[in-house]
Amino acid sequence: MSGQMKNSPLAGWVKIVGLGPGREDLVTPEVRAAIDAATDIVGYIPYVARIAPRDGLTLHASDNRVEVDRAAHALEMAANGQRVVVVSSGDPGVFAMAAAVFEAMEDRPDWQALSVSVLPGITAMLAAAARAGAPLGHDFAAINLSDNLKPFELVEKRLRLAAQADFAMAFYNPRSKSRPHQFARVLDILRDECEPERLIIFARAVSTPEEEIRCVTLGEATPEMADMRTMVIVGNSATRRVGPHIYTPRRA
Amino acid sequence: MSGQMKNSPLAGWVKIVGLGPGREDLVTPEVRAAIDAATDIVGYIPYVARIAPRDGLTLHASDNRVEVDRAAHALEMAANGQRVVVVSSGDPGVFAMAAAVFEAMEDRPDWQALSVSVLPGITAMLAAAARAGAPLGHDFAAINLSDNLKPFELVEKRLRLAAQADFAMAFYNPRSKSRPHQFARVLDILRDECEPERLIIFARAVSTPEEEIRCVTLGEATPEMADMRTMVIVGNSATRRVGPHIYTPRRA
Repeated sequence: MSGQMKNSPLAGWVKIVGLGPGREDLVTPEVRAAIDAATDIVGYIPYVARIAPRDGLTLHASDNRVEVDRAAHALEMAANGQRVVVVSSGDPGVFAMAAAVFEAMEDRPDWQALSVSVLPGITAMLAAAARAGAPLGHDFAAINLSDNLKPFELVEKRLRLAAQADFAMAFYNPRSKSRPHQFARVLDILRDECEPERLIIFARAVSTPEEEIRCVTLGEATPEMADMRTMVIVGNSATRRVGPHIYTPRRA
Repeated sequence: MSGQMKNSPLAGWVKIVGLGPGREDLVTPEVRAAIDAATDIVGYIPYVARIAPRDGLTLHASDNRVEVDRAAHALEMAANGQRVVVVSSGDPGVFAMAAAVFEAMEDRPDWQALSVSVLPGITAMLAAAARAGAPLGHDFAAINLSDNLKPFELVEKRLRLAAQADFAMAFYNPRSKSRPHQFARVLDILRDECEPERLIIFARAVSTPEEEIRCVTLGEATPEMADMRTMVIVGNSATRRVGPHIYTPRRA
């Protein structure tokens, strides 16, 4: 397991950390301590921008869609004895940098011997669910709607089976400029499988000053309600409103 | 939404908070601040035991399986002007106290008007996944295996559909003294649906001094590998080992 490498004779390490959804009081003390101990921070531009500069710390910000190159860079620096923190938003293990770092190690036994650990964070679906109430209060599925790395047919298959299983669902990356029509297709699939009264939460920029939380029925939902900063949560068949809150009963 | 009640004219409030899996440096500063501002802490005995006593703070610890009574007690105290923190381990919205609090409000419009909010935490599956590597690095389902509140047939249906969708899976409450045979049945269902080489992680007491992480194949898994302190994570068909780590590729 990851933790067993902590006594590696090499001084360098990589810690892949989750910064949570945006607000600083959602960053765990464990992650904060890792950042304080780092010599190098690696990550996507807006996440690296959250790290305060200080003497002895080099910030390496890179653009989106270069995850494996960025991961290789982090591993290379650790092999040179540097203490490298790879930053993700949310949790690094959920549609974020941890899988990319392990992918970069595939053909490199030398990198596999490095001290590499993953420090969890508050992933977007937990922050969004909390703001709405408890829509993920019972069995649920988390699905990345982006087809950058997988065929849309697989997304469609998972959506239909998750709806048939009556899972609540959390959608990451629902919509982007390069895939404007896809979320409309997702709503069509949900309308095939679920009743029009099904509740859907659009949670945008959760925990930031731009936060907007909106709950509508599947019948009322439109593709424009989501963008790349939106987390979408679909209730299961029992999800309901109680006062200003949305929750999924524990018996569902 | 929950957050809109913050300006309620009533001075009392309820914050339902997640303490994370066990180690104190996995508690967010947001949750710590709520505990510091509370007059009353309500929760299951071992979670309330994690809160340091201080003047002006009353600890109300209760036994398991009285979630809705405990929730009603919290709401009642908030209606009396008290500042009440309901503690859960992990995240309060994932198989924990948040849904019970909203359930307790169902027929009480007076309680629905109170200031009630949910503060997210590091849920067990994220902590367990991080210790193993990134087994939840792609689409996944979270399933509560307990049939205390739902028929086991529904658990079985969700397991089969989740396996057919090729979701990685995280199982909460895999086994208890009152349900000793059920996890054996879960393994049988998985063997029906998945290949024997499928990786399964048994993560016990994650982030505590008793932590044990073990990864075996489905062919090697036995029911005794899980108890009530164990989080079980089943990989998808692409989940693999790289060095000491287990991860699910982003393309799967």
